[in-house]
Amino acid sequence: MHPRNPPEWADDAAPPLPPAVCIIGLGLIGGSMMRATAPRLPVIGWSPSESTRGSAADDGFEVVGTLEVALSAAQELDALVVLAAPVTAFPILLRRVAEIAPAVRLTDVASVKHAVYEQVFELVPNARYVGSHPMAGTAESGWAAGSADLFAGAPWVTCLTDETDPEEWARVAGLALTLGSRVIPADPTAHDAAVARISHLPHLFALALAQVGALGGALAQALAASSFADGTRVAGTRPELIRAMCEGNRDALIDALDEGLAQLGVARGSLASTGSLNKITEGGHRARKAFVDRGADLVPVTLAGNELVDQLLAVGSAGGHVSGLARGDGGLVIRAWYPEDDD
Amino acid sequence: MHPRNPPEWADDAAPPLPPAVCIIGLGLIGGSMMRATAPRLPVIGWSPSESTRGSAADDGFEVVGTLEVALSAAQELDALVVLAAPVTAFPILLRRVAEIAPAVRLTDVASVKHAVYEQVFELVPNARYVGSHPMAGTAESGWAAGSADLFAGAPWVTCLTDETDPEEWARVAGLALTLGSRVIPADPTAHDAAVARISHLPHLFALALAQVGALGGALAQALAASSFADGTRVAGTRPELIRAMCEGNRDALIDALDEGLAQLGVARGSLASTGSLNKITEGGHRARKAFVDRGADLVPVTLAGNELVDQLLAVGSAGGHVSGLARGDGGLVIRAWYPEDDD
Repeated sequence: MHPRNPPEWADDAAPPLPPAVCIIGLGLIGGSMMRATAPRLPVIGWSPSESTRGSAADDGFEVVGTLEVALSAAQELDALVVLAAPVTAFPILLRRVAEIAPAVRLTDVASVKHAVYEQVFELVPNARYVGSHPMAGTAESGWAAGSADLFAGAPWVTCLTDETDPEEWARVAGLALTLGSRVIPADPTAHDAAVARISHLPHLFALALAQVGALGGALAQALAASSFADGTRVAGTRPELIRAMCEGNRDALIDALDEGLAQLGVARGSLASTGSLNKITEGGHRARKAFVDRGADLVPVTLAGNELVDQLLAVGSAGGHVSGLARGDGGLVIRAWYPEDDD
Repeated sequence: MHPRNPPEWADDAAPPLPPAVCIIGLGLIGGSMMRATAPRLPVIGWSPSESTRGSAADDGFEVVGTLEVALSAAQELDALVVLAAPVTAFPILLRRVAEIAPAVRLTDVASVKHAVYEQVFELVPNARYVGSHPMAGTAESGWAAGSADLFAGAPWVTCLTDETDPEEWARVAGLALTLGSRVIPADPTAHDAAVARISHLPHLFALALAQVGALGGALAQALAASSFADGTRVAGTRPELIRAMCEGNRDALIDALDEGLAQLGVARGSLASTGSLNKITEGGHRARKAFVDRGADLVPVTLAGNELVDQLLAVGSAGGHVSGLARGDGGLVIRAWYPEDDD
């Protein structure tokens, strides 16, 4: 992990940024990015909805009237294009990117990553693409729900593959850092497997639990307290948003769901046969405790030199993150947090 | 539901109360009851732990040194004995009650009710028993975790069966109201089925989810946000407490768990075959919305006259609750909240 002669890290180092940002889609995430980016960088936006464009313009942001104008401007400014639309719209959008700005800097904020990489490689092979996923959100959606501080303190995945140019990665990661996020480097497939477990499966569990509660009728609903309220909260998310993210991550979600079914099935068998829930309570309690204590052993390290992609992926796999980026004499210098070595 | 000529309800009516309260077990619930009851009624307590007795006495409460002294005092004062010990200790405690105070007023605060009714009928058949379950709690436990306002606004189930004397029920319900709870009348078996769905199953789901998350390693843990945090929160409860309540409600929990497994299994099949999660997202979202909106249609009614047990059980089954109790000229008068008639 540690380069032999790491450069000193200067806390006031400023991360590389793209010259401008062009946001396609102005819902909760895109709208929040627009608000958070505007004080720091030139930013333009477009939404297919006329009323959303009107609201954003009324709030003082630079909104253009067509996708063509947005992409042409991005091409001219060498801007970073951010796809912040529903992932179902990506094929249409990527075809327009290929026509108008085929070698543009490109990222997206979708909650699945491997499938988007495949689409981009197929439809816009020359784009300088770095997939990303800001893990921030609320149950609300739409321009009005956005806020400039949505990303403060949130994890923001930025993807790396063998083909990634660290300089292009650094502009996307630099934007995420500038908006207040912790940057988590990850391989696209590893990202998808992780979010299936810790985001998509929790949604399915919440939906199932809400229905089992409802089958209990009015008495059960009246008795429900915080364990039920917390366990079903994300079932309040709009069904089409849940479907888009869960169905888009089908293979990884099936694996996670099978693990969840196995855990519950073993507990069911044990409860019915011996009456004991020892295994699931001990294991689940230990797992929850480890989750609550996560990240407590992270210490700062400085990354530089060659094989930055591998170094960054090692940080992400270990549960670490990137907190700073700068361009030094010998190239990129990266401030990361990594589990303390036991030795 | 509505008696033909309901008496007027006076908002300042005071509920019937027992002459004194004797609390056996001074953990989170028993200790909170002691703190909340002491300003209003004579209350004595006992704990098998010398250090707990010392802490409670140091805090100014009347604690006795042995179970015998506590039960003898309760017998003399015609006090309401509250079993606030772990349900595994109930057989031993009930045998001592049968020896020392066989016809005492008796309630308990366990999270299962049918099994406790069976134990009481077998071991202390002459006790004036009314099972109860205050649905309040935190992840903490022990005397130090207790607080006088733990029950404020919380649902508090008070059980009714064909054998229940409404006057004895009213003293238990009156105490719950005096401590700030909403009183929910319920048949013991209906209570157990309801809490299996809305409390015990959420614990199993949280435990399973925590373990699926942990299997994803450090990257998954680092990416986990509010959906995972909320969905696993109650897995942080002490394993022995989860086991006591879940294993104690085995039959009802198996039924609820099978429903949960069926919901998830159908979703898994649909995701793997057609790729669609339409059914679980629509149904779960509707169920969550109904839960959030529960109780919005309740209007006040006054109950009095004959067949009070049936009237009260109808209130509980419909999702209603009792907010006031008084003794009028013609017997008990009860203020309840009941869903507005559609007609």
